Amino acid sequence: MTSVESGTRHLGEFTFECGESIDDLQVAYETYGDFEPEGEGSNAVLICHALTGSQNVASEGVAGTSGQARAWWNDIVGPGKAIDTTKYYVVCANVPGSCYGTSGPPAENPETGEPWGTDFPPVTIGDWTRCQRRLLDELGVGRLHAVVGGSAGGMNVLDWAVQYPDDVARIVPVAAAARLDAQCLALDAVARRAITSDDDWQGGDYYGGTNPTDGLALARQIGHVMYLSKTSMEERFGRRAAGRDAVRSFPADRAAGYFPYREVESYLDYQAEKFVDRFDPNSYLYLTRAMDDYDLSEGYESDADALAAFEGETLVMSFTGDWHFTVAQSESLAEACRASDVPVAHHVVESDHGHDAFLVEPEKVGPPLRDFLADGLAGRAIHDTVEDDDGTEEADFAPVHNSLFGG
Amino acid sequence: MTSVESGTRHLGEFTFECGESIDDLQVAYETYGDFEPEGEGSNAVLICHALTGSQNVASEGVAGTSGQARAWWNDIVGPGKAIDTTKYYVVCANVPGSCYGTSGPPAENPETGEPWGTDFPPVTIGDWTRCQRRLLDELGVGRLHAVVGGSAGGMNVLDWAVQYPDDVARIVPVAAAARLDAQCLALDAVARRAITSDDDWQGGDYYGGTNPTDGLALARQIGHVMYLSKTSMEERFGRRAAGRDAVRSFPADRAAGYFPYREVESYLDYQAEKFVDRFDPNSYLYLTRAMDDYDLSEGYESDADALAAFEGETLVMSFTGDWHFTVAQSESLAEACRASDVPVAHHVVESDHGHDAFLVEPEKVGPPLRDFLADGLAGRAIHDTVEDDDGTEEADFAPVHNSLFGG
Repeated sequence: MTSVESGTRHLGEFTFECGESIDDLQVAYETYGDFEPEGEGSNAVLICHALTGSQNVASEGVAGTSGQARAWWNDIVGPGKAIDTTKYYVVCANVPGSCYGTSGPPAENPETGEPWGTDFPPVTIGDWTRCQRRLLDELGVGRLHAVVGGSAGGMNVLDWAVQYPDDVARIVPVAAAARLDAQCLALDAVARRAITSDDDWQGGDYYGGTNPTDGLALARQIGHVMYLSKTSMEERFGRRAAGRDAVRSFPADRAAGYFPYREVESYLDYQAEKFVDRFDPNSYLYLTRAMDDYDLSEGYESDADALAAFEGETLVMSFTGDWHFTVAQSESLAEACRASDVPVAHHVVESDHGHDAFLVEPEKVGPPLRDFLADGLAGRAIHDTVEDDDGTEEADFAPVHNSLFGG
Repeated sequence: MTSVESGTRHLGEFTFECGESIDDLQVAYETYGDFEPEGEGSNAVLICHALTGSQNVASEGVAGTSGQARAWWNDIVGPGKAIDTTKYYVVCANVPGSCYGTSGPPAENPETGEPWGTDFPPVTIGDWTRCQRRLLDELGVGRLHAVVGGSAGGMNVLDWAVQYPDDVARIVPVAAAARLDAQCLALDAVARRAITSDDDWQGGDYYGGTNPTDGLALARQIGHVMYLSKTSMEERFGRRAAGRDAVRSFPADRAAGYFPYREVESYLDYQAEKFVDRFDPNSYLYLTRAMDDYDLSEGYESDADALAAFEGETLVMSFTGDWHFTVAQSESLAEACRASDVPVAHHVVESDHGHDAFLVEPEKVGPPLRDFLADGLAGRAIHDTVEDDDGTEEADFAPVHNSLFGG
């Protein structure tokens, strides 16, 4: 066992990237293991959670929660695991705008005693990073051994290398990208419309009334399809009808009864029901906008230019079945590192699990991550798209899968 | 000029596949050109419209309508065009369950004098086919020279070869499939939930009140993303902000104003606004369910078995950027034809335009279609995945693009 600390820190006044301030930014966080500020930096590893994740990276969190609200990377983080909490001091903080204890729309606005709602300032991934930096200062952590995170959390990782290039030795953006493409921007926008066009949303002032659960459920279902691959959905569900005891949780008309209620629908309905119990609709608006808005090159000439000040090592990880954050986008990121002489490997994982692979394939994610934290790019389990082009067995990843969606 | 006839026929009692009947099925249709019942069959070509299409395949239809409500294949059908209305007698009928004059939810139920709403019987693609057969009987057309259609209309085409194998000489399923996969079933199901969870839907009884336009707009936007490719969206919209005069048509909160309203959102919002003006929400439920339910092999051992009685020729057309109805699904369909000794060519069109390619790339769709109607599989502009595997320039389509989503 290693020690786990759950806490909330009051960081005082915080000015968001938009220019608005709040008097006291609260941050909910967890730490695992013991801090050792030795050697060139420290043994501290910051983990950045994904869109709807929480600080409870490897703990049960609040009773009754599910999904990424609790122990969402339990197979990766822990004693003896890839991110070994007997070696590393692991820190994970809930991001501003979210709903797991850090300040955000559902949290109380001290001035009014009511939830902030949509009076909460708009939030960016840059705000997430600066909030984490402030929290680490409070915890006495200066330089980090590594920053690791998947999906939107991987964008957060990239932002660390841009905002605080001297504070990080190694970064691992997993299933991430320098920016979302038009297709994902579109689907996120439709998901937000599902929330804001739910009558129960009430312009964001639904606290104390009825949550816009239908809208949030729709938003989650759109997202969920983005997280799975076409192949994995076909293999897992096909066209099968759900079991007889499956109950439609959405309204339907008489004529619907003639057609099967399919397993894939039942699965999405069930997952959406669990999700609306654990996530705040306004937070979903805020955090998807932060993700959509993120652009590594913003304020710089190019992605490479943005990364130029970073002198650490980078392990980029991507997954062949991922159409939300594609292999091609990760390769583009690796190329930006190479162009800036940032030492990098782009490790492509063959997986049909879509974007979810970074959560559900720990046996493929763990070894390169473990070796990178221990040995940097010399880590044995790490493969790179460039070296692999020379004829090893991985040589066919890049040409085939980069061409998936071209461009 | 060729003659165009627009009309509505009363087909009398019609029993749907579900077992329910209505006393008088009305069908709105158009014909182009002159019928010549000569030779081995006739010069009649039936065109099957797609999900939200209409009978107005190459005419302006009702004033004020847009999209597939009018002239949706104007570049393909007409005098001197690929489906040449100076040679062929073209028939297109609005399908049961739709909203362009054929009986469906928004049409009047003669017994009550009110719209059917969701009292209209559930509809299948098999019903579409039998309705078209009945209409053609009324028009005096026995055997067809060809049945041509795209998307759900392509499923309708396949059903013709199964239900009336002796009545058709040539079939052209364009951007179609033997059945939808789990991913598309999921997105269609989410789209229906967007409609039925709109408070204005009122269980389907919204006629005379307020249409559930928000829900239908969301459903359309989900569909629209399915019709475009990742590449085409990136090239067309990227991450650009919309012009200053673009106005958000969906509700949004204060914080949204900090982030750009993007071109891709503006486009989808504009298209959705046009769509809700031209389509009935209940019809959208009915027709997507018909499409989702369609399975070529239903009642047979296999797709090949279902097609075994068809003695005509088949031209399968697919598009490399299409992830709604994939090249792999079309190839599987072609294989089913080959397994049943149905003469077939699978013509793959290189296009980044996604599923929409069958509507927006007439210069690529037209030539093989024209030649197939004139000369069958001997048509010069027709390529086949099998013959092309021998080393012609098309040889790389199948292996690359079939692997897109594997499975």
